[in-house]
Amino acid sequence: MVDFQPILDQIHKNIQQCSDKGRVADYIPELSKVDPKKFGISILDNQAQQFSVGDAQERFSIQSVSKVLLLSMAFAKVGDALWKRVDVEPSGDPFNHLSLLEMENGIPRNPLINAGAIVVCDVLLSQLKNPREEFLQYIRDIAGDDSIHYDLDVAESEKRTGFRNYAAANLIKSFGNLEHDVEDVLDFYFHSCAIAMSCEQLVKVFYIFMNRGKCMANNHYLELSQVKRINAIMLTCGFYDEAGEFAFEVGLPGKSGVGGGIVALLPNEFCVATWSPGLNEKGNSKLGMLALEQLTTETGLSIF
Amino acid sequence: MVDFQPILDQIHKNIQQCSDKGRVADYIPELSKVDPKKFGISILDNQAQQFSVGDAQERFSIQSVSKVLLLSMAFAKVGDALWKRVDVEPSGDPFNHLSLLEMENGIPRNPLINAGAIVVCDVLLSQLKNPREEFLQYIRDIAGDDSIHYDLDVAESEKRTGFRNYAAANLIKSFGNLEHDVEDVLDFYFHSCAIAMSCEQLVKVFYIFMNRGKCMANNHYLELSQVKRINAIMLTCGFYDEAGEFAFEVGLPGKSGVGGGIVALLPNEFCVATWSPGLNEKGNSKLGMLALEQLTTETGLSIF
Amino acid sequence: MVDFQPILDQIHKNIQQCSDKGRVADYIPELSKVDPKKFGISILDNQAQQFSVGDAQERFSIQSVSKVLLLSMAFAKVGDALWKRVDVEPSGDPFNHLSLLEMENGIPRNPLINAGAIVVCDVLLSQLKNPREEFLQYIRDIAGDDSIHYDLDVAESEKRTGFRNYAAANLIKSFGNLEHDVEDVLDFYFHSCAIAMSCEQLVKVFYIFMNRGKCMANNHYLELSQVKRINAIMLTCGFYDEAGEFAFEVGLPGKSGVGGGIVALLPNEFCVATWSPGLNEKGNSKLGMLALEQLTTETGLSIF
Amino acid sequence: MVDFQPILDQIHKNIQQCSDKGRVADYIPELSKVDPKKFGISILDNQAQQFSVGDAQERFSIQSVSKVLLLSMAFAKVGDALWKRVDVEPSGDPFNHLSLLEMENGIPRNPLINAGAIVVCDVLLSQLKNPREEFLQYIRDIAGDDSIHYDLDVAESEKRTGFRNYAAANLIKSFGNLEHDVEDVLDFYFHSCAIAMSCEQLVKVFYIFMNRGKCMANNHYLELSQVKRINAIMLTCGFYDEAGEFAFEVGLPGKSGVGGGIVALLPNEFCVATWSPGLNEKGNSKLGMLALEQLTTETGLSIF
Repeated sequence: MVDFQPILDQIHKNIQQCSDKGRVADYIPELSKVDPKKFGISILDNQAQQFSVGDAQERFSIQSVSKVLLLSMAFAKVGDALWKRVDVEPSGDPFNHLSLLEMENGIPRNPLINAGAIVVCDVLLSQLKNPREEFLQYIRDIAGDDSIHYDLDVAESEKRTGFRNYAAANLIKSFGNLEHDVEDVLDFYFHSCAIAMSCEQLVKVFYIFMNRGKCMANNHYLELSQVKRINAIMLTCGFYDEAGEFAFEVGLPGKSGVGGGIVALLPNEFCVATWSPGLNEKGNSKLGMLALEQLTTETGLSIF
Repeated sequence: MVDFQPILDQIHKNIQQCSDKGRVADYIPELSKVDPKKFGISILDNQAQQFSVGDAQERFSIQSVSKVLLLSMAFAKVGDALWKRVDVEPSGDPFNHLSLLEMENGIPRNPLINAGAIVVCDVLLSQLKNPREEFLQYIRDIAGDDSIHYDLDVAESEKRTGFRNYAAANLIKSFGNLEHDVEDVLDFYFHSCAIAMSCEQLVKVFYIFMNRGKCMANNHYLELSQVKRINAIMLTCGFYDEAGEFAFEVGLPGKSGVGGGIVALLPNEFCVATWSPGLNEKGNSKLGMLALEQLTTETGLSIF
Repeated sequence: MVDFQPILDQIHKNIQQCSDKGRVADYIPELSKVDPKKFGISILDNQAQQFSVGDAQERFSIQSVSKVLLLSMAFAKVGDALWKRVDVEPSGDPFNHLSLLEMENGIPRNPLINAGAIVVCDVLLSQLKNPREEFLQYIRDIAGDDSIHYDLDVAESEKRTGFRNYAAANLIKSFGNLEHDVEDVLDFYFHSCAIAMSCEQLVKVFYIFMNRGKCMANNHYLELSQVKRINAIMLTCGFYDEAGEFAFEVGLPGKSGVGGGIVALLPNEFCVATWSPGLNEKGNSKLGMLALEQLTTETGLSIF
Repeated sequence: MVDFQPILDQIHKNIQQCSDKGRVADYIPELSKVDPKKFGISILDNQAQQFSVGDAQERFSIQSVSKVLLLSMAFAKVGDALWKRVDVEPSGDPFNHLSLLEMENGIPRNPLINAGAIVVCDVLLSQLKNPREEFLQYIRDIAGDDSIHYDLDVAESEKRTGFRNYAAANLIKSFGNLEHDVEDVLDFYFHSCAIAMSCEQLVKVFYIFMNRGKCMANNHYLELSQVKRINAIMLTCGFYDEAGEFAFEVGLPGKSGVGGGIVALLPNEFCVATWSPGLNEKGNSKLGMLALEQLTTETGLSIF
């Protein structure tokens, strides 16, 4: 077993010396208010030991990280039928979000881009009676932590300014790949993005993907083959236009969010979450990426 | 002066022998109900003489033909300031409606594609107190015909199914190129598309573009230089992905709509409107295009 | 009949006061050597009267202007069969030169973009025994001027640096839309671009498109319907990504070249050529565009 | 240690019952001559034990599989300087091979697409005195097998029909991202694709990527960090537009070629090669993909 504590301490020290912390997302007012100097990291290993440094207990908006959780719940509910609605290929480049949707008849490239997560939300709306409540409970259950909640101000703010998501949802709807009303789908989607968690909570949620489908409380939520597939999608699609770079530099399946959070994992070994609100030009946490590079370089732990 | 009547009679005869009448638009239920055998044509010359054949007095949904009228009203109101909000270039190809918008930061390629007309609607909302009423009155005034009206069933139907237009409007809004709410802009836009007119009415409306800015009642609504520019835009952008083909085969500025109407004009000479509901694969009236080709071939009248 | 001389004199005076003359093309060394202060304009009217100012007798590299002449010769030779090999639609935007070719299976959008002219060259190679000689003789014949020649240094220079044209030709070849070897087609293409002429010569060549298919020497080279179609293509496709703008501001069919030449015409009325080597950011002569705008504004002469 | 033999025997039996074997590549005559019923598979484990079934000793054209070897040799020679010339991101979709090159200024998306491998060839031309000989010797050395050779008929055939590669190379050259002549770069590139090997030879070559940079003969050719990065690129980019699907279904880094070969590996565990000439619609070996899916499903071995 690795003692991660001294490694995290060293990373923390290194990170504090970086003067360029990236740019805090300002596309919704709530996100822009966050202090750019915040930094936290937490690791949960396969013996359920937890190691943390910095602001690892402070909650932040997980944003796109929730796409993995939407995917996980939908995949468990409908199985491989999901892949008729959304593909599993990397999305290529930032310019063509909507143009690829047009060329591919409303089938999003993968469930970890906005368009794909919107379709996954639509799938869940057909499966759940109280989508918001049940999705939150699902996350609470796999983490064993009932304090996880929605940040309703963030959800509201996303809704008021989410014109690109409205554009994507309407385009998908025009191709017949949404069963529910655009408003209902996006309401659920915006709430899912607005879940607030700390690094320490995030690793407890993602423990299931490191632990072959079994959550902290030892309940089985996903087949092993499903976990492997979700991990594969995180690796190829989890970092927008920087997925290749992350696989290349870090070598772990993971997912980032514009709130500055990143979560990643080495199957059977450990799960790690970082938080630093400043983003690089691709929209991923600048110092979070750096911390994870240092972690895998230092420990030699990667899937490759 | 040309006696157009025998020419129109001959065209009518030829058209009636065409078995392939194209496909009636079915993207909204109201349009799909129209009888595909309908065919009308009407010409108004520079002496205000009118020549007609077939169903030239039957009203149909003018759809995108109204984009020229929106443009005309907005251009008269705000002048060249309009071109900061929308460009005047042909749109290229059918695949990239939204992708071009993305690459060009929310500035639509021209005012005769949906995205462009949506921006023009937004411009008019800032200028008009009662946009729907004033726009309709503008058309009635330049035609000298107060019986022109909105088909509210069509407007309602477009609104319920216009997901692509919602997608375009939200995308434009995300780039900051809409001042008003998407709902308000689209409500006005869908109504403008839902104006119902006959061929005989259409040529009276478009007389102004043939007649150097003066309408039938001899009032001046547009500068000559503005008329020329609107005609230029019709020529280069009036027929979706078939603008080049129409310039090539017909050689007149014009505009088509998915209701099966086409209007075209030779400056200082005549204005012509055709109606046949069946569309070709590019979305233009199949027999209307054919009738106009025959008209210009027969008479030798074209701008080239 | 219009006396164009005082109008040209005034334009000349205005142009001389413009300090921003655009940027001389530097993509091949030969073009970059030209003096940016050169400016000439020449008009030939329907009575064969010629009016000129400035450097109207100095030869320059006509570059893409020759695409109209290639088109004219090929259209006369093979008629409408030409349109199986190349389309007549505007090309949309500058980014997608090659991507549109890919999406449209190697059929170029129109004969006035590089890809289209390359296909037209291939068509001519199948029709001519000595393509270079016969093409040059064709131009000499319609102008009635045997002094027109190739600038072999320019041709050689284009060949050495024309990687984008090699890319386009090979892509077209990969789709089966070139019958001859890429090298042979491009050798002919590069020579056609390297024809040198003055404004006074250019208007004599283009007289045929203004004069319903009859050249200066009164020989008939093109059907009237063919002339109209070539004029239509010039209007919709003659100015790269600025075709709409030119139709809008000038309102005449025309063609520009990166050597700084522009030729335009009003059917049955006059033909005009300008030369000023500095280009705007779209690749059209900056002062030439301005001169033509002033000409049509001043005279009120336009097809619209 | 796993005894792979019974697993391979079972896969062989299953595969023989598949009636749809895909379509043999016919874009060059030499490839189309191959018998579609051929099927071989070979595994080399971390103890250098080899297991094989079917036509595992028959040589075939490795085609794009050689891109990994070009990358490996260039990465070892120039280190991270390579990434200034080529990126490491998945390429997205099949339509935009050349358009992405255009949008990204001649920097190919990754070294495992044609455009990227062409740039890697250019890099090697600057490093090697006798590129063809030295590249072949490099492969022979890491495999410990001097019988590996070029199939010169295939190389010649690729050269005669490789118009798309000529297009890509010229486009890259136009952006200044090729130092050598297009002809020289492509001659080397076409030869690299034309290397012939059997499955049993392929796994010996790729043993180095499974074995942390040490080849069969125990020589160190690559840093461990370089091996990890090459494996990451194989995972995210090794299967054209099906990279996500392969990661999802198989879960191993690998590379396919249109000759019907696929090679894949689990770091520190084993390396596997399959050969079946029929391709699926994405250009990957249909039965090879199936065999690898069965292998990882059966053994539970994957990086996820």
